[in-house]
Amino acid sequence: MKIGILGYGNLGRGVECAIRQNPDMELVAVFTRRAPESVSILTKDAKVCSVADVEEWKDKIDVMILCGGSATDLPEQTPKYAQMFNVVDSFDTHAKIPEHFEKVDAAAKKSGHVGIISVGWDPGMFSLNRMYANAILPEGKDYTFWGKGVSQGHSDAIRRVEGVKDGKQYTIPVEAALEAVRNGENPELTTRQKHTRECFVVLEEGADPAKVEETIKTMPNYFADYDTTVHFISEDELKEKHSGIPHGGFVIRSGKTGWDQENSHVIEYSLKLDSNPEFTSCVIVAYARAAYRLYQEGQKGCKTVFDIAPAYLSAKDGAQLRKTLL
Amino acid sequence: MKIGILGYGNLGRGVECAIRQNPDMELVAVFTRRAPESVSILTKDAKVCSVADVEEWKDKIDVMILCGGSATDLPEQTPKYAQMFNVVDSFDTHAKIPEHFEKVDAAAKKSGHVGIISVGWDPGMFSLNRMYANAILPEGKDYTFWGKGVSQGHSDAIRRVEGVKDGKQYTIPVEAALEAVRNGENPELTTRQKHTRECFVVLEEGADPAKVEETIKTMPNYFADYDTTVHFISEDELKEKHSGIPHGGFVIRSGKTGWDQENSHVIEYSLKLDSNPEFTSCVIVAYARAAYRLYQEGQKGCKTVFDIAPAYLSAKDGAQLRKTLL
Repeated sequence: MKIGILGYGNLGRGVECAIRQNPDMELVAVFTRRAPESVSILTKDAKVCSVADVEEWKDKIDVMILCGGSATDLPEQTPKYAQMFNVVDSFDTHAKIPEHFEKVDAAAKKSGHVGIISVGWDPGMFSLNRMYANAILPEGKDYTFWGKGVSQGHSDAIRRVEGVKDGKQYTIPVEAALEAVRNGENPELTTRQKHTRECFVVLEEGADPAKVEETIKTMPNYFADYDTTVHFISEDELKEKHSGIPHGGFVIRSGKTGWDQENSHVIEYSLKLDSNPEFTSCVIVAYARAAYRLYQEGQKGCKTVFDIAPAYLSAKDGAQLRKTLL
Repeated sequence: MKIGILGYGNLGRGVECAIRQNPDMELVAVFTRRAPESVSILTKDAKVCSVADVEEWKDKIDVMILCGGSATDLPEQTPKYAQMFNVVDSFDTHAKIPEHFEKVDAAAKKSGHVGIISVGWDPGMFSLNRMYANAILPEGKDYTFWGKGVSQGHSDAIRRVEGVKDGKQYTIPVEAALEAVRNGENPELTTRQKHTRECFVVLEEGADPAKVEETIKTMPNYFADYDTTVHFISEDELKEKHSGIPHGGFVIRSGKTGWDQENSHVIEYSLKLDSNPEFTSCVIVAYARAAYRLYQEGQKGCKTVFDIAPAYLSAKDGAQLRKTLL
């Protein structure tokens, strides 16, 4: 199947790498808002085109993967391009998913295409695991922990503090809280009890470390409700040790069964990722395969990970799957 | 929806308990090969009937849950009852799944019903997680560990040893192997390196413990390839401490991404279950909901967990799921 990528940042590059691992897929073109000649991609046989020319590719691309951001790009792009293509996005503003779904659904139904939204790991694989676990254990309690990993939003917040030249923030789950949940204790956990935040900060020349630390630790919404540690390091050390984008986390449901709820069960799903955007890309590419197949079957409209049978994601057919993985 | 249970052992009782936790379901009848008046069930308003009369219930039951064993019951029962009902089973002889699928598929297609086979946790939720992880990380390696939990087959094997009055066997994953896999080391593991086996044995009067221990530890297929520990305990202690049926395990896939496979990722799914049959029952009941809905949509034939979109398992509708769990 022929894939297009719209937007060539970390996610777009991740999708390009993931396509290379799937022999039934071919990257045909990358669409960018920049001058195409200024963008160099890794795939030899794919073209770099201006997003202005995307409509010319209407019949040459089976699935367009939208790699823009959730804040301003995807709310416009996904409904727009669902008018021309089967699309997959990673829209991750949880509170706005219902609204986004409606818009993409209307556009995709009108054009006869399939649009799969909110694909990745959270939303995405974490959502799937929350859903399966809730369906299996109706009497229970859900927990999601994130990390250890880099939070882009919190790193940005640090970098906006006066006196900070650069910085990186790690979100870290509290081990004791994880253990209590795994033991089926069903604890009620405050924000502070679930995660800690660790910051690595490069100061501007002459900046006051005590003041910077205080400003970070008391920042409402971002840090005030957490136990936060601030480390001051050199620009070289930041580059050397903190330039990766690792992430991960845990989805746990503990529940009771039995006539009098006498037995406990714990379902846990976890991810440990060297590269957040590359893993997200891998999930997206598997769902691009599903979008292609659903479209071939004549389906249309907006779908999420909840609506798609697992087998659609795999390059293997049903008989192979039953024989090797069931 | 109206549910029937065929076979009332540990699994049948587990299904009965699970139905109680799902307000959209009602247990209407339990079918047994024993004399119905000799079987007492927990649900007040449900009937106990002879399996000989099951055909009379053809139009009064939406989904029949088959709770027989995989060795001899289900290979016959599932194709047979798929001629009259939508059915769900927990057929777990992995090597014979393709053959079982074909038979159930033919019967269910002919009668216009839905048959969902091999539902539970392995096969079942473990299979699903193997499949999702394989689709997401095509370049990687799979690991499944079982336990800590009671293996019925190995406990039976112990009880067949001369001089043994009763016994229970626990399968235990080797922590060092789990750690190596979680660290992305992609180890090649022998049978002995993955699991140990721990036996609790009650001796017949006058039996020779050294001989019993030797016989167990050298038993081909069951114990010879493992590091096995044998503890001799009293009948009272066995009853008090080892009468539960806990189980669980881990499905882990580690894989590489990036243009030159420079990044590692680990996906892990694990279960810690107080009661193996009750958890299996919960999964079965969620798939019974799916069977009912697929039948309402006019689908027919045999399905596995791979073929069923997750949303079919949940009592919540699509909009609720997107709002609360995505």
